[in-house]
Amino acid sequence: MGAQNTAILLLSCPERKGLVPVISEFLFQHGGDIVHADQHQDPDQGMFLMRVEWELKDFDLTPDQFPSEFNPVAASLKMNWRIEYSDVPARVALFVSKEDHCLMDLLHRWRVGELRCEIMMIVSNHEDTRRLAEFHDVPFHYVAVKTADKTEGERGQLHLLEENHIDLVVLARYMQILSPEFVARYPNRIINVHHSFLPAFIGPRPYQAAYERGVKLIGATSHYVTAELDKGPIIEQDVTRVSHRYELADLKEKGRDVERMVLSRAVRWHLEHRILVYGNKTVVFV
Amino acid sequence: MGAQNTAILLLSCPERKGLVPVISEFLFQHGGDIVHADQHQDPDQGMFLMRVEWELKDFDLTPDQFPSEFNPVAASLKMNWRIEYSDVPARVALFVSKEDHCLMDLLHRWRVGELRCEIMMIVSNHEDTRRLAEFHDVPFHYVAVKTADKTEGERGQLHLLEENHIDLVVLARYMQILSPEFVARYPNRIINVHHSFLPAFIGPRPYQAAYERGVKLIGATSHYVTAELDKGPIIEQDVTRVSHRYELADLKEKGRDVERMVLSRAVRWHLEHRILVYGNKTVVFV
Amino acid sequence: MGAQNTAILLLSCPERKGLVPVISEFLFQHGGDIVHADQHQDPDQGMFLMRVEWELKDFDLTPDQFPSEFNPVAASLKMNWRIEYSDVPARVALFVSKEDHCLMDLLHRWRVGELRCEIMMIVSNHEDTRRLAEFHDVPFHYVAVKTADKTEGERGQLHLLEENHIDLVVLARYMQILSPEFVARYPNRIINVHHSFLPAFIGPRPYQAAYERGVKLIGATSHYVTAELDKGPIIEQDVTRVSHRYELADLKEKGRDVERMVLSRAVRWHLEHRILVYGNKTVVFV
Amino acid sequence: MGAQNTAILLLSCPERKGLVPVISEFLFQHGGDIVHADQHQDPDQGMFLMRVEWELKDFDLTPDQFPSEFNPVAASLKMNWRIEYSDVPARVALFVSKEDHCLMDLLHRWRVGELRCEIMMIVSNHEDTRRLAEFHDVPFHYVAVKTADKTEGERGQLHLLEENHIDLVVLARYMQILSPEFVARYPNRIINVHHSFLPAFIGPRPYQAAYERGVKLIGATSHYVTAELDKGPIIEQDVTRVSHRYELADLKEKGRDVERMVLSRAVRWHLEHRILVYGNKTVVFV
Repeated sequence: MGAQNTAILLLSCPERKGLVPVISEFLFQHGGDIVHADQHQDPDQGMFLMRVEWELKDFDLTPDQFPSEFNPVAASLKMNWRIEYSDVPARVALFVSKEDHCLMDLLHRWRVGELRCEIMMIVSNHEDTRRLAEFHDVPFHYVAVKTADKTEGERGQLHLLEENHIDLVVLARYMQILSPEFVARYPNRIINVHHSFLPAFIGPRPYQAAYERGVKLIGATSHYVTAELDKGPIIEQDVTRVSHRYELADLKEKGRDVERMVLSRAVRWHLEHRILVYGNKTVVFV
Repeated sequence: MGAQNTAILLLSCPERKGLVPVISEFLFQHGGDIVHADQHQDPDQGMFLMRVEWELKDFDLTPDQFPSEFNPVAASLKMNWRIEYSDVPARVALFVSKEDHCLMDLLHRWRVGELRCEIMMIVSNHEDTRRLAEFHDVPFHYVAVKTADKTEGERGQLHLLEENHIDLVVLARYMQILSPEFVARYPNRIINVHHSFLPAFIGPRPYQAAYERGVKLIGATSHYVTAELDKGPIIEQDVTRVSHRYELADLKEKGRDVERMVLSRAVRWHLEHRILVYGNKTVVFV
Repeated sequence: MGAQNTAILLLSCPERKGLVPVISEFLFQHGGDIVHADQHQDPDQGMFLMRVEWELKDFDLTPDQFPSEFNPVAASLKMNWRIEYSDVPARVALFVSKEDHCLMDLLHRWRVGELRCEIMMIVSNHEDTRRLAEFHDVPFHYVAVKTADKTEGERGQLHLLEENHIDLVVLARYMQILSPEFVARYPNRIINVHHSFLPAFIGPRPYQAAYERGVKLIGATSHYVTAELDKGPIIEQDVTRVSHRYELADLKEKGRDVERMVLSRAVRWHLEHRILVYGNKTVVFV
Repeated sequence: MGAQNTAILLLSCPERKGLVPVISEFLFQHGGDIVHADQHQDPDQGMFLMRVEWELKDFDLTPDQFPSEFNPVAASLKMNWRIEYSDVPARVALFVSKEDHCLMDLLHRWRVGELRCEIMMIVSNHEDTRRLAEFHDVPFHYVAVKTADKTEGERGQLHLLEENHIDLVVLARYMQILSPEFVARYPNRIINVHHSFLPAFIGPRPYQAAYERGVKLIGATSHYVTAELDKGPIIEQDVTRVSHRYELADLKEKGRDVERMVLSRAVRWHLEHRILVYGNKTVVFV
């Protein structure tokens, strides 16, 4: 579903006529051959959102030239936009605590080519996943984080992220809550997986709460992290069926399969630049 | 999956050894041939729950005789139990307001034999479904209910239920909240469908809330009604996928399919005596 | 998800650069405001397919004028195309035999506004559904069809279809195989539901075959009818879980829910002009 | 869902009255406390099948004693039976070719405790997965297999299996067809995953065939291997949704997730002694 050497333009602007022809004409004039285009209109808010991807082979604007050429078009349409290049893979840091099922899944998908990115490091407040990191030849950084005062731990983490020019942080079952200051540094660039079907069972121990409520499905939710716990824009959700036979440990175990799926899909869509955040929602162009 | 002329024993008691042989031996001694048996243990609470169904053909206890013969066994095991007979169909009342998709679905399933019961009446606070009731030859009762004071409306409803010896009330998108007094008259015998994946979006306008939160799945929940709104024991839940393209009206429309499914399954399991309520949870022996 | 008064252009042509700007520019020049656009490229066959929908409010071409204006554009791009108007509902005939679950489902969806069309008639080789037709105020036509020689029966059916200018024939569990001559009259305009997950269990009695094979899921498939039995382009498929407990009758019963869903989705997508047939496949722009 | 130290009795016999009391009474007399019991009747064939699991703590028969005590009961009921002990984990060999997604998934589930067994070895006709085997401290055996004449390769494989007293062979995307002689040595003890929803797309290259047919769901099937290719008793199946946007490579990629799930569930149920093969079908007591 993806061509090899493409540019992706993601934009949003107030709804008005003639947006598509303006944009497609601009790309055509510069030799861009559109391979994928999708758009969305929000009638309530009068907003237009679009993702358009084109081959770079005959495109006559370099990444350096593009902004100055496109800005006049964008300004006339009051557009927010960004451009991404498929041959510039995102630099990713994976955060994890002890449970490694999401980590292992992401690493495997990365190794077989499902996730186009560079996994620059694994950061953990435990030593448990060091061996797995080594198996995949990914640098492993142990950073102690005190629950009572995360300042020092987060300083160390941020230092690592900056030093390595990290574009995306994936919380692959990382069990510490990030401070608002940390989150503010990576807006819409931290993806978490919460082990419930949000907004049900916000907060700690969602499987326990699901068990007590006697639900017949359990779920998981991947979302961008915002300052408010478990309230960020939802990227993906899924569920799996359980029954009265499932004890708490069984819920946790079965939930792992759903967690893996919803996290890996979210990461993939982010890496393929398919997600536009919009209010507190996401538009996912798949 | 169901034999024609059977008895079903539903029981719960404190866990102890030898429960199964005692019960199966009792049935065997009286000529009962077990066609289905299922059991569940809750280790936390030390509880044992069982559903056992047997053919009545050679069973030597009449419904009149069964209690006195079985009570000594039950008493020695501190058992709660009830017996149901497949050839005694439950008498059902369907409550509905304006939207008729669940009502129509239940009536169709009933007509083609999926729901073994007698649908004695349709009760509504609107006239909209009268014609549908007539098409299915089911008596239709319009009972006005004032939101501010339901006393009189509920008195009329309860009178109808009692007069017709109703065993089960199904709220097939009935949009009035029943009073605690009404609910207390039919414990675990009123089934409601709530148009969200409980406990997410309790209360009114769940689709609106789901739309605003930007969820990627919408759900529905069927449950027994208790005094606390949307907090009763969950019988069944299901979900369906939505995307950013779904406006509020689309969510409602797509949700109808899920509502139908979860309500009809719950009603069917209730009618087949497959549900045991247990704390605030259900055990569904399917 | 659909605006009220729109035109929908469906097209396919050989892949080349600049297709999107040409088409969007054409619509823009004539005052068409695009509300939905989706496209697909098939790299194997070098084909480009597109669906574009725009508001007619300020569009300056009438349905009469559109072809002559658009044809030069289309010819230069070697395009196959057709245009549909949302305020011109398709005229639909529903064919049914004895089982009425799909028929009832379609009629209900139509009545509550999910299916924008005119249901002109119900045609059946049995009398069973006459009362349901009357309930929905849809003309019912009994047409006897002899399995050995369908010539006369089909002549009667075709006469009805032509007289009523039928655009779409839906086989809602119609159990007679249409002759190739009949099918040829309505290419890609006859939708059938087959009660299996095609291509598994082609032909008669798929539930029996599924039961004998011991599958763990049963499915249904909606597809356009072609001369070759059960081989036409698939529009939609779905499945539901079964177990060893399901006897043949249970498979049939559970299958009805899937049949309803896949048929109603296919009909809806057809009526919303979301389907392009392409080789023996469909592109469904949803 | 599983107690720690239990015995599991799996049995089938002609249907007759009083089977359950006889069996449960036998276990009770010997101090066995039933923790799980499930049964199935096949009315067509007059067969009764049962799985019963009990705690061994107070059970007074040793594994050595059980057969001689139980055989008279079994003989009187014309019963086929076997007993398994939860503290005697099966000895498993994993066969794999190049693609390692199923292998990795099984190894991870095994390491975190989802699969109670001893993985004794990985056998492959390629070297690709040697490093993964080493990471999990599982012996890796490269055995060359010539497609034209497998005799020598299979002799080597069988030697390894026998030497290590292997109970279960799992074909985790092993791309060689086993000879009937090999299969006959491990009846109902070789589990394969086929990458289609059987019986659709039997044989080689099912994704290619699914792509060409234009299906809207792709599936995978885990089954016991029999002499006839892809015709053995189905244990588990699942599907995932695809669309016209999926090229062949995308189908393969998305299919991997389904393959993993259906294979791991089958292996788990086998290891927990939940599967009874019956004709060419399975009864899965979950």
